[in-house]
Amino acid sequence: MKQLEERILAEGIVKDGEILRVDSFLNHQMDPALFREMAKEWKKRFADAGVNKILTIEASGIGLACIAAEEFGCRAVFAKKVAGRNSDADVYATKITSFTKGKVYDVTVSKRFLQPEDRVLILDDFLANGCALEGLMDLVHQSGATLCGCGIAIEKGFQEGGKKIRAKGIRVESLAIIESMSGNSLTFSQREE
Amino acid sequence: MKQLEERILAEGIVKDGEILRVDSFLNHQMDPALFREMAKEWKKRFADAGVNKILTIEASGIGLACIAAEEFGCRAVFAKKVAGRNSDADVYATKITSFTKGKVYDVTVSKRFLQPEDRVLILDDFLANGCALEGLMDLVHQSGATLCGCGIAIEKGFQEGGKKIRAKGIRVESLAIIESMSGNSLTFSQREE
Repeated sequence: MKQLEERILAEGIVKDGEILRVDSFLNHQMDPALFREMAKEWKKRFADAGVNKILTIEASGIGLACIAAEEFGCRAVFAKKVAGRNSDADVYATKITSFTKGKVYDVTVSKRFLQPEDRVLILDDFLANGCALEGLMDLVHQSGATLCGCGIAIEKGFQEGGKKIRAKGIRVESLAIIESMSGNSLTFSQREE
Repeated sequence: MKQLEERILAEGIVKDGEILRVDSFLNHQMDPALFREMAKEWKKRFADAGVNKILTIEASGIGLACIAAEEFGCRAVFAKKVAGRNSDADVYATKITSFTKGKVYDVTVSKRFLQPEDRVLILDDFLANGCALEGLMDLVHQSGATLCGCGIAIEKGFQEGGKKIRAKGIRVESLAIIESMSGNSLTFSQREE
């Protein structure tokens, strides 16, 4: 998506060819006008999927999920990171490893908000190694809901996550795919629009 | 705001006259169509305030803040809860006590996203004892930005927070004010609309 790529080039900060900071518009600080355009793009790409629920994970996916849910005319749910093991019978629970934070989170969602009749679109700001997506997919699977696919703002195409999840037959729509990063610059993968 | 009050009565769950759960539409699960109406109401009430930045705190304020920011035509920022003391020179930091979780959080916001020229509207889902708002107000104060006021979804009018913050001359606009809760029911304070 050209508008997102341009914004990444204008405001993103690449550090040492490894870290991409987009916290002036995508997380920490959020630009809802850009989110609206991104939401419309996901709506276009998943137009035929019958999505009636958006699922994300706290905290940085919530703004995107909320605006996308408005575009799809449904509600959004965020999975919660909980300290320690959660054995509450009212929740679906899974584990997600964060490599950037060097931590394993227990992640839960209330059973009331993921039901077998739900058709779920998972949204998140980043896709790198795919651990967060796999955790969210596990929650959807436990609930018996249908997974329509995953919408990602920025995919690090040079990491394994996207390949791994698409290999399972899951539809992943990333609005910007970074082909490579080095020094303080980056290049995007081309996509037919 | 009638629409929010009606939703609280329809979907809210009062437990033992103390806890109000609204997690089917306000947090955990979020209804963006309702958020849009709430955002329009805040826009109306703060129409003359020149708001150019929305500030909230993770996680449950983020969805509201993002949709409200779209309504105000500005960006939203969420303060982060961080584990342990944060002495990063790039952030404003404060402490917020959560009585429901029995915990003190260090809360930070990047100095890049709160600037002296900003006119800030603080938004949050709940106002009870006022600790979260006071922490966010402290971050605004440290930055030299102007505080336009606070927008709250649900104020527990029988707790001290609203009174304490209004006594400082801060404008607080709560869209639903609960006068009392007992057993499994509640009553709202009347407000001229």
